[in-house]
Amino acid sequence: MDTLSEIAQPVENELRAVEEITLSCLSSAEEKLGELERYTLESKGKRIRPIVALLSGAVAGQLREANLYLAAASELIHMATMVHDDVIDEAAVRRGKATINASWGNPVAVLFGDYLLSQAFGILCRFEDNGILPGMIQMTREVCEGEIYQLRRRYDISMTEEEYRGTVSMKTASLFSTCCRLSAGLAGASRPAQESLSTFGRRFGTAYQIVDDCLDISEEERGKDRFKDIEGGRITLPLIKALAALSGEERERLALAFREGDVKRSRREITAAGAIAACRRDAGMLLDQARGDLSPLPDSLPRDALIRLTRFLLGAP
Amino acid sequence: MDTLSEIAQPVENELRAVEEITLSCLSSAEEKLGELERYTLESKGKRIRPIVALLSGAVAGQLREANLYLAAASELIHMATMVHDDVIDEAAVRRGKATINASWGNPVAVLFGDYLLSQAFGILCRFEDNGILPGMIQMTREVCEGEIYQLRRRYDISMTEEEYRGTVSMKTASLFSTCCRLSAGLAGASRPAQESLSTFGRRFGTAYQIVDDCLDISEEERGKDRFKDIEGGRITLPLIKALAALSGEERERLALAFREGDVKRSRREITAAGAIAACRRDAGMLLDQARGDLSPLPDSLPRDALIRLTRFLLGAP
Repeated sequence: MDTLSEIAQPVENELRAVEEITLSCLSSAEEKLGELERYTLESKGKRIRPIVALLSGAVAGQLREANLYLAAASELIHMATMVHDDVIDEAAVRRGKATINASWGNPVAVLFGDYLLSQAFGILCRFEDNGILPGMIQMTREVCEGEIYQLRRRYDISMTEEEYRGTVSMKTASLFSTCCRLSAGLAGASRPAQESLSTFGRRFGTAYQIVDDCLDISEEERGKDRFKDIEGGRITLPLIKALAALSGEERERLALAFREGDVKRSRREITAAGAIAACRRDAGMLLDQARGDLSPLPDSLPRDALIRLTRFLLGAP
Repeated sequence: MDTLSEIAQPVENELRAVEEITLSCLSSAEEKLGELERYTLESKGKRIRPIVALLSGAVAGQLREANLYLAAASELIHMATMVHDDVIDEAAVRRGKATINASWGNPVAVLFGDYLLSQAFGILCRFEDNGILPGMIQMTREVCEGEIYQLRRRYDISMTEEEYRGTVSMKTASLFSTCCRLSAGLAGASRPAQESLSTFGRRFGTAYQIVDDCLDISEEERGKDRFKDIEGGRITLPLIKALAALSGEERERLALAFREGDVKRSRREITAAGAIAACRRDAGMLLDQARGDLSPLPDSLPRDALIRLTRFLLGAP
C-alpha cells in the first residue's frame, strides 16, 4: 500500500512550497491569533486537497506560482470549515487534539474560522486576473449552502440517496472539483482537460465523503472523535442504505436508535444491514469512474499519482 | 433634526438600486436559506454603510454600477458580522427581534454568517479588475483581527484608550474607511480625494462605535438588547474613561461590578463618573475632524449630506 507522501512524490517540491505559503499565512504578530495559528499548524492534516490540486495542474500542464497559492488556499478554506464544523457539532476532539471551540470557546472559534476564510481569499488576490478568486468564492458559497441544507434535513430519514449525493456534491466535492479545474486551468490545460479534471474531482470528493461517513461509524480507532454524524442527527449514506435494506420492525429499531442518538445500537443495525460494505462498493464505483475521467489525459507520473490516490482512498485505514 | 432618509436624499435612487441588489442576493431557492434571508431582510437596519459608501462616491466623482455593488457588499458583510457577533455574545435579541442563533441555534447562525460573507464577496467578483474585491477581503480580515484582539482583552481593565482606538479602528472603522476610499476610487476620484474620504471614514466609524458603546449602557430604550458589552466583559470607552476618572475605593467598586457582570452597578458608576459625557465629547471631536477631512472636496449636495450625517450620528436617539 502506498503512503500519501509516496503518492505525492511528483509534486513534493511544490507541496513543500505550499506548506511554506500556508505557514506564512498563519504567523500573525497578534498574540491570540498567533497562538491559534500555531495550534492549528501542530495538528497537521493529510493535505489531501493541496495534493489533488497540485497533481491536477501537473497532469494537464505546467505548474506556476499561482498553483501553489491556489493549493494553499484550498487547505486554508478546508481548515476554516473544520473550525466552524467543530462549533456546529460541539466537537471536543479532532485528530486526537482538543478542538479550538473546546479549548478557547465558541466565540474564538467563530472568529478564527472567519479569519482563516479571509486569509484564504486574501492570498488569491494577487492573482486577480485569472478567475481563481471568483471560482473559490463561488465554491465556498456552495459549501455553505450544502451544509445548511444538511442541517435542515437533520434527523429526516426520508432523505434519499439522490438528495444525499446532491448535498455531498456541494459540501465536500465542490472544493475538490473546483480546485482540480482551476489548477488545471492555471497550468495551461485545455478546456476539455479542465472539464475532465473537474469531473474527476467531483467523483473523488464524493467518494471521499462516503469513506468518511463509513469511518465515522467504524470500529477502527483514529485520531478524531467518532460517531459525530449519528450524534448530530446527520443523514449519512450508511444510514440511508441501511434503512433501505431493512423493513418492518428492524427498520423501526434503527430509526428509533438514530432518533435517540443511540450510537451503539445505530452502529450495530447499520453494520448488520450490510450498509458499510454497500457504501464502500459505491465509493469503489465512483473511484472507478474517476479513474476513467483521467483516461483522456496524457500518461504521466502525475496521472499515475492521481490513480494511486483513488486506490489509497479506499484502502486507507 | 434630519432623518436618515432626508440626509440620503442625494443618493436615494442609487440606494434603492442597492436595496434591489441586496434583495436579489438574499432570495435563495433553498428552503432553509430562503427563510433565513427573508427573516434577515425583515429586520432592516439603517443602511448607514451603503449610504456612506454612496455619498463618498458621489462627493468625489460619478457613481457607476460598481458603486452599487460595493455598497450592497458593505451591508452584506455587516450583516454577516452581526450574525456571528450574536453567536459570540449569545445575544437573544437584535433590533427588537429574536436573533438567528436564538431562533435557529448556533449551527445555523454560524453557517448563515459564512454564507452571507461569501455572497458579499461573490457579488464583487464581476468587478474583478478594479481592486475592490481585494480591498474588501483585506478589510474583512482586519475586522476579524480586531474582534479576536477584543476577545482576548475581555475583562482586562488595563486596556488603554489608545489600545481601544486601535481595536475600534480594525473592528468597526475599517469597513467605513475602506468603503469610502474604494467607492471614491470607483467614481473616479483623485488619489488625494480618496485618501481624504478614507480618513473621513476612519474617524466617522470610530465615532460611530463610541456612540454605540454609550448607547449600550444608556437608559434609553431601543430595539436591541442592551448591556451586551458589560455582560460580555467587553472593554468599552465609557468603562476606560470611568476607570481613569475614578480612584481608590470608587475605582475598585466599578472594577468589581464589571468583573461580576453587574450591569446595574457598572452603569451607575460609569455614568456617575461622567464617562458618557466624556465619550460623547470625544466622538464630537472626531466628527469635527471628520468634517475637516471633507473640506478639500468640492462643495456639493453629497458633501453636505456627509456633513449632516456626522451631526445626525451624535444627535441620534
